[in-house]
Amino acid sequence: MKNKIKVAVYGYGNIGRGVEAAITKCPDMELVAIFTRRDPSSVRPHGKSVPVFRAQDILSFKDRIDVVILCGGSATDLPVQTPDLARDFCVVDSFDNHANIPEHFANVDKAAKKGRRTAIISSGWDPGLFSLMRLYSESALPSGESYTFWGKGVSQGHSDAIRRIDGVKDARQYTVPIPAALDAVRSGEMPELSAREKHERVCYVVAEQGADLARIEREIKEMPNYFAPYETTVHFISEEELKRDHSKLPHGGSVIRSGKSGFDNENTHVVEFSLKLDSNPEFTSGMLVASARAVCRMNEEEMYGCKTLFDVPPAYFHPMAPSELRAKLL
Amino acid sequence: MKNKIKVAVYGYGNIGRGVEAAITKCPDMELVAIFTRRDPSSVRPHGKSVPVFRAQDILSFKDRIDVVILCGGSATDLPVQTPDLARDFCVVDSFDNHANIPEHFANVDKAAKKGRRTAIISSGWDPGLFSLMRLYSESALPSGESYTFWGKGVSQGHSDAIRRIDGVKDARQYTVPIPAALDAVRSGEMPELSAREKHERVCYVVAEQGADLARIEREIKEMPNYFAPYETTVHFISEEELKRDHSKLPHGGSVIRSGKSGFDNENTHVVEFSLKLDSNPEFTSGMLVASARAVCRMNEEEMYGCKTLFDVPPAYFHPMAPSELRAKLL
Repeated sequence: MKNKIKVAVYGYGNIGRGVEAAITKCPDMELVAIFTRRDPSSVRPHGKSVPVFRAQDILSFKDRIDVVILCGGSATDLPVQTPDLARDFCVVDSFDNHANIPEHFANVDKAAKKGRRTAIISSGWDPGLFSLMRLYSESALPSGESYTFWGKGVSQGHSDAIRRIDGVKDARQYTVPIPAALDAVRSGEMPELSAREKHERVCYVVAEQGADLARIEREIKEMPNYFAPYETTVHFISEEELKRDHSKLPHGGSVIRSGKSGFDNENTHVVEFSLKLDSNPEFTSGMLVASARAVCRMNEEEMYGCKTLFDVPPAYFHPMAPSELRAKLL
Repeated sequence: MKNKIKVAVYGYGNIGRGVEAAITKCPDMELVAIFTRRDPSSVRPHGKSVPVFRAQDILSFKDRIDVVILCGGSATDLPVQTPDLARDFCVVDSFDNHANIPEHFANVDKAAKKGRRTAIISSGWDPGLFSLMRLYSESALPSGESYTFWGKGVSQGHSDAIRRIDGVKDARQYTVPIPAALDAVRSGEMPELSAREKHERVCYVVAEQGADLARIEREIKEMPNYFAPYETTVHFISEEELKRDHSKLPHGGSVIRSGKSGFDNENTHVVEFSLKLDSNPEFTSGMLVASARAVCRMNEEEMYGCKTLFDVPPAYFHPMAPSELRAKLL
């Protein structure tokens, strides 16, 4: 049997744990190490035999790791860590700060090319599968409009924004697509939709004892960018209720493109890709692990530098050989 | 401005016409010639300035064409034509006989490599976009089940099969997915479904005057493979009704994968890709034209031989430059 792909996880939070779980479903891969900035003895992986090391020691594992999956956050971790490691390791990340992708790409590309390594950044579902769907559907149907809807699902960024408000103990924010907008888009009529017409925001907030609830609600609803442009509903609940009813991280959404074909635009087509996910971090992890497989194969073929899902031949993600894929999945 | 991609169409039926229409929506491409096995003077392209030539003369246009899109049928045309042309031209086809793809691939690959050309076979939506969705969703979610539903839409193969019955003047067959099966799959419960549980077949038949309708209906319903395994309904209608109500070629369908993640398979995910198409041949043509763009780019980069959509980096299908794609679509 061929050697298994040796994967290391860098950062062990929701995504790191999801990657560990995802690797158990891939017979061609094995998790050989977890690296953490915390005290390694405080990290308890699910697999009892998986060793945990200090992040700063990773360079001494250079010859024992085929690919590192970076599982940190996009705000401050990945912009530093991915370029840092890309010179010495093949790497994969889920960098999801859309506006900063070009800069991140350039930094990682430079490092990876210097070390003759391969990197895939911004893997996951958005950016990720959703990006692929935007690209394929636009390519097939150049005359049309694309729409992305998120939810119903927990937005960690919006939940964090609420938690920073004075008097808030904990919070969970759901992004919810508005059914009338979805219906209009699915009908193929290509409506123009404002942010407010596409999504609403539903917040579950645990307040500190004695906090001014009216002020908290006002501060949420008036928060620029995050909430002000949207219809926002705020529910105050107890800590127990939050734990009982809102401890999971479901998410999902749809990319929909509708467009016209024919010499007189006489035919309408609607292309829709949708996800319904019980666990956002675990599904994201599935894409990261498939991307780790792709990175190793591309590196073997000397395709060096930084890639996004737009650059990866789809067959590289799947464990089957190309001839088997053609026979079974095409 | 960069030179436009010079496209030739080989065969001018529903797909050939769809390709002509699709190219009008691509500013980076131009249709330079149509080749036909009929008398060229009998072919009337929509664009009055598009020249029509005899198929047998195509070799003398070798230096004036960047890519040939083959628009013939999968039963007898493409198995011969695509390998025939792949040595002298970059080519694209929509070969859709799933069982024979490996053989077709091998034939085209040999010819294309000999001529240092690039070919994409089996482009369209199934095989095509649906195949890609099966591959990506299996890669992200290896533990699960995939389902493909077709319709509601006109199946040309099934319509033809009815037309071959004695006493049938014309016919249109709709493949219709069964809502209960779709619901069960979308719920994530991963049901086992027989062919009969997934689709039903609805036939509109114009009989010859005086034909034995009961016999025709029986022959349809008992036809092996095509109809016998399915719940089939037969409606006899007039020629006028067929023309009025069933002259379009709508189609569509869904690829759905549901699967589990987590150390104890505790989370369920459902991935769905669906198409609602007013015109099957025109949407297929959109994919063929995008594939023609990809073929030219791959050939420029000396990626010779036969490819399927599984081998093509997605960015190659889209007219934008990779950096622009990263900034706008990722």
